[in-house]
Amino acid sequence: MIKKISGGVCAPKGFRAYGVHCGIRKNRVKRDLALILSDVRCTAAGVYTTNLVKGAPILVTKAHLADGFAQAVIVNSGNANTCNDNGVEIAEQMCRLVEQHTGVPAADVLVASTGVIGQKLSIDPVAGGMEELVGGLTAEAEGSSAAAEAIMTTDTVRKEAACTFTLGGKTCTIGAIAKGVGMICPNMATLLLFVTTDAAISSEMLQRAISCDVKSSLNMLSVDRDTSTNDTFCILASGLAENEPITEEGHAFAVFCKALHTVTSGLCRLLASDGEGATKLIECTVKGAKTVQDARAAAKAVVCSDLLKAAIFGSDANWGRVLCALGYSGADLDVTKLDVDFRSRAGVVPVCRGGAGVAFSEEDAKRVLSEKEIYIDVGCNEGRGSATAWGCDLTYEYVKINGDYRT
Amino acid sequence: MIKKISGGVCAPKGFRAYGVHCGIRKNRVKRDLALILSDVRCTAAGVYTTNLVKGAPILVTKAHLADGFAQAVIVNSGNANTCNDNGVEIAEQMCRLVEQHTGVPAADVLVASTGVIGQKLSIDPVAGGMEELVGGLTAEAEGSSAAAEAIMTTDTVRKEAACTFTLGGKTCTIGAIAKGVGMICPNMATLLLFVTTDAAISSEMLQRAISCDVKSSLNMLSVDRDTSTNDTFCILASGLAENEPITEEGHAFAVFCKALHTVTSGLCRLLASDGEGATKLIECTVKGAKTVQDARAAAKAVVCSDLLKAAIFGSDANWGRVLCALGYSGADLDVTKLDVDFRSRAGVVPVCRGGAGVAFSEEDAKRVLSEKEIYIDVGCNEGRGSATAWGCDLTYEYVKINGDYRT
Repeated sequence: MIKKISGGVCAPKGFRAYGVHCGIRKNRVKRDLALILSDVRCTAAGVYTTNLVKGAPILVTKAHLADGFAQAVIVNSGNANTCNDNGVEIAEQMCRLVEQHTGVPAADVLVASTGVIGQKLSIDPVAGGMEELVGGLTAEAEGSSAAAEAIMTTDTVRKEAACTFTLGGKTCTIGAIAKGVGMICPNMATLLLFVTTDAAISSEMLQRAISCDVKSSLNMLSVDRDTSTNDTFCILASGLAENEPITEEGHAFAVFCKALHTVTSGLCRLLASDGEGATKLIECTVKGAKTVQDARAAAKAVVCSDLLKAAIFGSDANWGRVLCALGYSGADLDVTKLDVDFRSRAGVVPVCRGGAGVAFSEEDAKRVLSEKEIYIDVGCNEGRGSATAWGCDLTYEYVKINGDYRT
Repeated sequence: MIKKISGGVCAPKGFRAYGVHCGIRKNRVKRDLALILSDVRCTAAGVYTTNLVKGAPILVTKAHLADGFAQAVIVNSGNANTCNDNGVEIAEQMCRLVEQHTGVPAADVLVASTGVIGQKLSIDPVAGGMEELVGGLTAEAEGSSAAAEAIMTTDTVRKEAACTFTLGGKTCTIGAIAKGVGMICPNMATLLLFVTTDAAISSEMLQRAISCDVKSSLNMLSVDRDTSTNDTFCILASGLAENEPITEEGHAFAVFCKALHTVTSGLCRLLASDGEGATKLIECTVKGAKTVQDARAAAKAVVCSDLLKAAIFGSDANWGRVLCALGYSGADLDVTKLDVDFRSRAGVVPVCRGGAGVAFSEEDAKRVLSEKEIYIDVGCNEGRGSATAWGCDLTYEYVKINGDYRT
C-alpha cells in the first residue's frame, strides 16, 4: 500500500533541508540557495542530461557519486554555471563550503545549478549565505518547502512529493523536490529532481531503480523539446527505515520502484502543469501499441507538438494534429487502426476511429477542452504496449517569458 | 551563370498555370484551386512526407509518377484530404476532371491538397471550378502567381522563384511555386513545392537531383518541427529548352542541380520568413564540423529550438540556448571548441568562443537582433562539414493562429 504524504525531501527519516536568498539573483528577493543534508552517509545514484554541453556542476556531482555514496546536496538557482571557464572550480568550491559548515566531506556533497547559461557564477553570495542556510536546516516540512522554493526559476509553484510504503513490516518513505518549467525535454533526467528515502537499498539497486524509472517518468515529459544542459536527478537513501537492505531484484525492489514511480510521475504532472506560460496540463496515454517503445514514442510526440499544444490552448479539437504527430513519431503504427478521444473531467469526445474522423459536437468538444487538465487517449488496436506522456499547452505567455528571459 | 528571373512555374518553356476560387474555402473568397499544365508530356519525379499518416493525394500522385512521366498538377487548399475514408477516390476524381477538361490522361496528372486534416473533401466545388480554371491557363507570369496564391493557406505572401542557366549553349529555365507556414518540418519534402523546367533530363536523373537537393534545402527548414502529412515536392521537365538530354552524372547534371538549389534554397528562405506568425527569418550556418551530417544536425537543432526562437522574437542575445541546442542536436561536436556569432545587416556580435561566453555590448546585440533577418554563425573548428538551416521566430501570433486554426 503506497500512501501519498506531505513533507517532501524531509519526509524520510534522517533528512533535513532549507533554502535561503543569498543574492545570486540580484533583481528579485527569492530564495536561491538550497541544501539537503542527511544525518548519515547515504547510498546514492544519479542520472544526468544527455546534452553534450553539460553544466559544470554535473561533472563534479558525477565524480562525487562515483563511489555510490553521498550525504548532502547543494543547489543554486539564478545561474546555471554552464559554459564558464571556471565552472568546475566554482562547483567544487560550493561543495567545500558545505564541508566547512557541516563537516560532511566535500566528496560526499552533490551540487547542481540552474538559471542563465554562460554568465560566471560568483562564489561570494554562496559563501555569504552558508551560515543562514546551515542554521536553518530542519527535518520539518518547512525545510523541504524552503529548499523547493530555492531551486525555482520561472516556476510558479513549488514541486514536492512524498509517499510511504512497507518493506518487511518496516514503514519506508520516499520524498522529493523538483524544478522544471523551461528547457524541459529531459533525456535520462529532468532539469532538477532530488529524491530522498530512508529505505535501505544498495547504490547499485538505487541506480537501477532510477535509470529504469526515468523511462516512464521524466523521459516522458516535455515542455518545449529543449533538453537542458543541467538536467540532474539524484537520489539519496539513508537506510534509517531499518528494512532488510535491498541488494537484488525481487519483491522488495519492485515495491520500492513502484513507490518511486508514484513520486516521480506525480512530479511529472506537476512539472508539466507548471510548464512556462502553461494554462493546461496535457496527458497523452497510448494503449494497444505493438511495443512499449512504440507507445512511448507515440505519446511523447503528441505532447511535444507545438501545433497540438497551441490548439489545446485555444480549446480547439483539432485531432488531425494528433494523427500528424503520431504519424511522424517514429512509432510503428497502423494508421488505419488509430482511435483518438479527447477527455477531461467535463466528459469524453471520441474524434477519430480507425484513422478517420467521426462526427462530434463542436460545443461538447469546446467544453471538454476548456478544462485545466486535458487527456488525449490513443488506441492503436495492435498489441499491448502502453505509455503516458505529459506536456502543456503553448501560450502567449511562453513566448513572452522566453522572449526576454535574461533581463 | 545562374540568373534569377521572375515568372515562377510559367518561366520555363511549355508551361501554363492558373488558380481560381472554386469554393472549397467557404468563409473566405481566396483562390483555392490551382492547375499547372505542360504542353508536352514531361519526365517527372517527386519526394514526399515521411509521416506514416499520408494524405490521400500522395498515394495517387506516387502511383501516377511510377512511370516517371507527368503532364499536369492539380492542387487545392482549404482541405488536406487526409484521414478521410474516401480520400483516394476524391483525389482520383480530381485527376479525371483534369483529363476531361484538358485531354491529359488522368494517369499523367499529379494531385496535392493542403488544409485541415480529417474533414471530407467534396468534389463538387472542384468540378464546378474546372472550366474557369482551364480557361484561365496562361504562360504569362500572372498564371504562376494565380496558382501560387491558390495553394496558400495561412501564408501571407506568395512563394515563387525561377532562374535561367545554360547547358551546351542552350538557355534552360527552372521555375517553382511553394506554400509553407505551418506544420513545417519537412523530411524529404516541404508542404507543397512544384518545380517546372524546360531542361531535357531523364526521370531517373530528375529523381536523383531532387532527392539530393532536399537534404540541403527543404530538409533544413523548420517552422514548428511538425512534419506534415501532405508534404509533396514534384518536378516536371518539358525538355523544350532543347539541350542535350541529361541522362547521367557529369557537368550538365551538376549545373542543373546548382540551378535547382538556387530556386529551392531561395524558397526555403521565403518559407521560413513567412512561417506562421513569424516576424524574423533565422538562418543558422554551421561550419568546420567533422562531417556535413554533423553540420546539418547542428544547424537544424538551432533553428528548431522554441527557446531560441522566442529569444530572437524578443531580440535577446541568449546564446546559451544556441549552445544548448547544439549540445542535444546529436551532432558529434567538441563543445569546448564552439564559436558563436549573432549577425544581421546591422553588424556582428561574437558571443561565444571556445564554448565559453565572451563579453559583448547588450546594446549592440539588441540592435543586431532587432533586424528582420538574423544570422547565427557557428564555428566548430574541427573539420570541413558545413550546412545552413532556416527557421523563424516564435511569436504570440503563432500561438494565436494555431489556437483556433479550424474556425
